Parts: sequence; structure tokens; C-alpha cells
Amino acid sequence: MLDRFKVPEEDRVYVRESEVRAATEAIFLAIGLVEADAKRAADVLIQNDLRGVETHGVSNMLRSYVASYQSGDLEPKPKIVTERETSTTAVLDGGKGLGLHVAPTAMEMAIEKARVHGMGAVNVHNVGHMGGAGYHAMMAIEHDMIGVAMSTSGRAIVLPTWGAEPRLGTNPIAWAVPAGEMPSFVFDIGTSQIAANKMRLAKRVGARIAPGWIARPDGTPVMEEIDFPDEYYLLPFGGTRELGSHKGYGLGATVNILSSILTGIGPSLAPSSPGFHLMAYRIDAFIDVAKFKADMDEFLRGLVATRPAPGEARVVYAGLLEEEEHARRLETGIPYHTEVIEWFGTIGKELGLTFSFV
Amino acid sequence: MLDRFKVPEEDRVYVRESEVRAATEAIFLAIGLVEADAKRAADVLIQNDLRGVETHGVSNMLRSYVASYQSGDLEPKPKIVTERETSTTAVLDGGKGLGLHVAPTAMEMAIEKARVHGMGAVNVHNVGHMGGAGYHAMMAIEHDMIGVAMSTSGRAIVLPTWGAEPRLGTNPIAWAVPAGEMPSFVFDIGTSQIAANKMRLAKRVGARIAPGWIARPDGTPVMEEIDFPDEYYLLPFGGTRELGSHKGYGLGATVNILSSILTGIGPSLAPSSPGFHLMAYRIDAFIDVAKFKADMDEFLRGLVATRPAPGEARVVYAGLLEEEEHARRLETGIPYHTEVIEWFGTIGKELGLTFSFV
Repeated sequence: MLDRFKVPEEDRVYVRESEVRAATEAIFLAIGLVEADAKRAADVLIQNDLRGVETHGVSNMLRSYVASYQSGDLEPKPKIVTERETSTTAVLDGGKGLGLHVAPTAMEMAIEKARVHGMGAVNVHNVGHMGGAGYHAMMAIEHDMIGVAMSTSGRAIVLPTWGAEPRLGTNPIAWAVPAGEMPSFVFDIGTSQIAANKMRLAKRVGARIAPGWIARPDGTPVMEEIDFPDEYYLLPFGGTRELGSHKGYGLGATVNILSSILTGIGPSLAPSSPGFHLMAYRIDAFIDVAKFKADMDEFLRGLVATRPAPGEARVVYAGLLEEEEHARRLETGIPYHTEVIEWFGTIGKELGLTFSFV
Repeated sequence: MLDRFKVPEEDRVYVRESEVRAATEAIFLAIGLVEADAKRAADVLIQNDLRGVETHGVSNMLRSYVASYQSGDLEPKPKIVTERETSTTAVLDGGKGLGLHVAPTAMEMAIEKARVHGMGAVNVHNVGHMGGAGYHAMMAIEHDMIGVAMSTSGRAIVLPTWGAEPRLGTNPIAWAVPAGEMPSFVFDIGTSQIAANKMRLAKRVGARIAPGWIARPDGTPVMEEIDFPDEYYLLPFGGTRELGSHKGYGLGATVNILSSILTGIGPSLAPSSPGFHLMAYRIDAFIDVAKFKADMDEFLRGLVATRPAPGEARVVYAGLLEEEEHARRLETGIPYHTEVIEWFGTIGKELGLTFSFV
């Protein structure tokens, strides 16, 4: 994550992962989730926070999930129904459950199909937020598989290239690939230039907005650095056509097709509920796992060994900084904005829970 | 394609597609390909030219294929061997055949596996250039499937984000999706900011290089418009980290993993032969085809109906301009640079062939 999004040091409170994990599980249990789902949903949020993906950790997301349960938009004990199934594919009705635990259920199905047949893909509709694509893709790794996860995001807030009306969600997509000794390759991106959550984070930490990140309400890309604006649209990644925004736009549309249209949700140009597409490839359906992992190690080491450009400290790859952050935060605790700690206090009181770190 | 890459009007010769197709087939036959392979290879090049994807048409590519056959790097009558196979996957040794016809053979296998099992993926190594990913992905469309095609490109010419040494090829990737009445969605991109072929084209037509497209030999992104430089590296799409080049870099690495490492080619940090990953999803393994196509039409119409930003004429989607160009060029012929026509004359003489348009 770029420095400008980080919580300023003076506003940080460091909390041990075990404490915030226990608090998050307790909140999900108090809301009515069964224990396995509460643990899984908390694990998604805490793993994101440990990996430094705080756009999808407890700070940004947990309170909105709680509000959705309280309003009845989310069902704590969803009935998940398989609507169509082949040996390699399935479409699930998620029963209005939170994606944080419904997506892992679907990914486990995809993994089992891949175990038997080589590949598997499971789509989900009628489901809440996925909580970041990376976690679900990474579930394939321990099975010596490659995982793919994508989701439409429910709200049209991203402009098409050359457009002045939003047509797509931020539509994240992730690939996760095991290596041998090196940290796994985990490529987990939004297809907008800036994640919607990152804009919320930018507002919280008072970050300025860089050129090419957003558009004015009339669709014109903002090409100078500005303070956080009152009104804006998100641009596809690339920003402008000359800088390749048709690639972000096209990938966002691809995610919409595979996650929503292929799931039966419809065109999803207007706000609609999200759809998921979760996929697994079994590596040894193509090549011996040992050779694959050795080649992955050599590839990833080669990337890291690249001489940096002037002014740059090092070259990394997708998943490396997140793994380093994970190790660091297990030691130091996870830095949260004081405002997030206060929220835990408030919601704890409301649900009759007490948390050690508040 | 951006205007700056187009052949200037005064250097254009318009040739009917049937004539250049016949000439291209004749060249492949004279080189020793069997008729079906010669027709398929020519079809890939001519379809690319008709769709305006001239980076992968006869102008840029045919002469290099001819040279590779003449040097023995390509085998006109390759023996394709299945090395590993499951119900949904396969890895093929392409027998040093040209990817233009070996990739369709592999894609046909993936489609047949998807027809029976819902999904299929076939990887290929020991094979020549694919000739653009879009054509092969589009093969799935007539079977009511979604096609995916990707390839590593053999030469490391793209810098990792923050790096000063090239580590990846331009590693193209394409998704092709059928609609009902609207032109198919065909999202076909390189993972570098600018395709290597487009740089060749830029040199031929004397185009200037825009900010954020390439890096200096020391790895620094060039952020002003310049004339075509003597030495440069390609940047991942996005250009700089602030503009999202980690997304282009990560997608390029993903293509390398799925196309080369999963195929057994190895880490492919240094020049190596390309690898392919071709995949098909059967739509009705997820949802009824009629509903899918109706929703695709509504989605694509909605994108096209988007109000344009100030100064922009219209909003399009991946595949729309290419389909319009296809219709236009069937009428007007395909515009080639005079230099390309001269090359047909030269190679014709060498192979004892005469072409009507030279």
C-alpha cells in the first residue's frame, strides 16, 4: 500500500492479533453466526489486517457488516443452495450470507472438484461482501493448487474509459500460486485505479489524491494532485486511455461477466447484489508439483534480485510485502486508528461484550 | 488502436482480404505446412488485420515466421504430443510448430473437454508465436463458451515495477465472451504498457512515444513525450507505481506462471520459448445460454449508451471497435504500408509465387 494511505503514527494503537481476532469472533457470534462461520469470517478480516490489506480488515468493513445484519440485509445463518452443478462447476444461492464465510464454502467446493477432475469453478449469488479476493484465492495453496477469486462489488462507481456515468463496481480479482521456499505469489487487485475502500481510508487519514486516480463528476480525469474532493467517480486502472485505462475497464467488465452475468445476476449496470467466481487448478494435472514449486522459487527469487531503478530501494512481487508485513504484525500487533478502537468500545457496549484492548 | 500507430494515408495500399489471404496461404504452403494448418495460420493473420489488430497481422509477423521456418527454428509439419492429460487438462509438446495453428489445435482440445466436463484447459510448450491471444479465445464463442488464451512471449523485455532489468515478456492475455445481438466481448491485451509489436509499428510510421509508456535503459520511466528512442525498456501497463504499474506487472507474472511455469518451461526470466494456456468454460454449466446472451446484450448496450466525458465522442467496449473495423475492411480492403506490399513481391519471387496485388 502506498504510504499516503497509512494511519499516521500519532493516531495508531497497536493491538495483538489474538485480541482483535477474539473480539471480532465474539461480535459475529453475538450477531448469530454459527461458530465455524464466525471463526472463518473473523479469520478473513484478521488475515487481511495482518497482511497490511487494511482496506479489507476490521477498520473499514466490520461496522458495515454489523449494520447489514442489524438491518436484515444479511442473514447470520444462511441456507446455501446448489442451483446447478456439473463435475467441474456449480452455482450457489448464498442465502444472503456474508461472503466472508460463504466464499470459503464455495472455494472448498471448487477445490474438491479440482482434486477429482483437475479444475473446478463455483459461482455464488444472493450473498454479501467477499472481504477481499486474495484470502479466498489463497485457500487453494495448501492443496497444491492455483486459486482464482473474483467478485462484483454491487455498486456502479467506476467509469468506463471515455465515459461520464459509472457502469462497473471496483470488481476485484486475485490469483494465488504456491511456491516452495519463497512466500506465495498472491496477486490481488481492484480493477479501478483506486479501491473504493482506499478512498474511505484516504478520507480518514487525510491523504491527498494523486493525478490520474479519479474523475470529476463530468467524467474528466483529474490530472493534478488534489485534496479529497466532495464529488468524484473512480477511473478504471490506468486512469486515462493513453495510460491504458481500457485495460482496467476491460478487466473490470470481465469480472462482471464471470462473477455476475455467468451467475444469473444480470447485467449489473445498476446497483445489485454481488456475484462471486471462485476457481481452482490442480497443479499436478499439468506438471509435477515439486518441479513447479522449484521453478516458482527461481522465478520469484529472480524478480527480487532485479537491480532497482534509480531512487527505488528494491524490487518485489505480488504477495511478498504482504507476507513480510504479516510476520512483522504478528510481532508488533496491528496498527489501528484510534477511531476504530473507539468503535469497538461502542459496539461492545451495544452487544454486551467487553474487549481487553479498548 | 491509438491514431498515432496507424499507417499514414499517403503510405497506404488497400488490398482485398481474399487476395492477401490467398497470398498468405500460398506462402505457408510453399514453406511446407499441410493445407489445414496453412489455412488456419493465414486465417489468424487475416482476422487480426481485418479487426484492425495490425500488430499481429501480416505486416509485422509474417516475415519473421518465414525467417524462422527458413532457419529451422520452426517445423512446418510438427508432431504434436500429449504429455499429460486429465479429463479437464492437458499439456502438449507443440513439436516446434507455429503457434498460429498449434494454439487452435490446443484450444479445440480445451473446448472438447469443456463440452464434456464443463471446463477445459490445455497448455503448450515447444511452440512458436501464438499470433495474438484474441483469435484463440474467440474460438470458444461459436460453442457457447467463454474462451481464455494467454502466452508468454519468449523474450524478457518488460521491467518489473521499480526494476532496471527486464524480467517478463509482453505476455498477452485475452477473454472472449459471446453475446446475442451485440458484437462479442473480446478483451485482448498485452501486459506491458505498449506491445512490443506496437513499438515496431511506431518506428515504421514515425510515431512519437507518450509519457509513461517506456523506461530509460536505467529503469527510470520516461514521463514526457519523446521521439522514438535508440534504447529503452518496456514498462508494465500502468507505467509507474502511482499509476498502477504493479497491476500490469502482476498480471504479466500471472501469465508467466500459468503459461510457462505450469507447462514445465521453467521460470522464463531469460529468453526461452513461449508457453500457452488456453481455456474454455461452457456457459450452460453455470446458467442457461439464452439468459446469459440476453444479459450480455443488455450489459454491452448499457456500456455503449454511457454519456461520454467532455471531448470524447462515444463509449465503447473491448471488441466493439474491432468488429466495426472488420465490417469496414471487408468493404474497403485492408490498408497496408507500401513497404509490406514490396515485401510480398520479394518473398513471392524467392518462393516462386506471384500475387495479384503486388
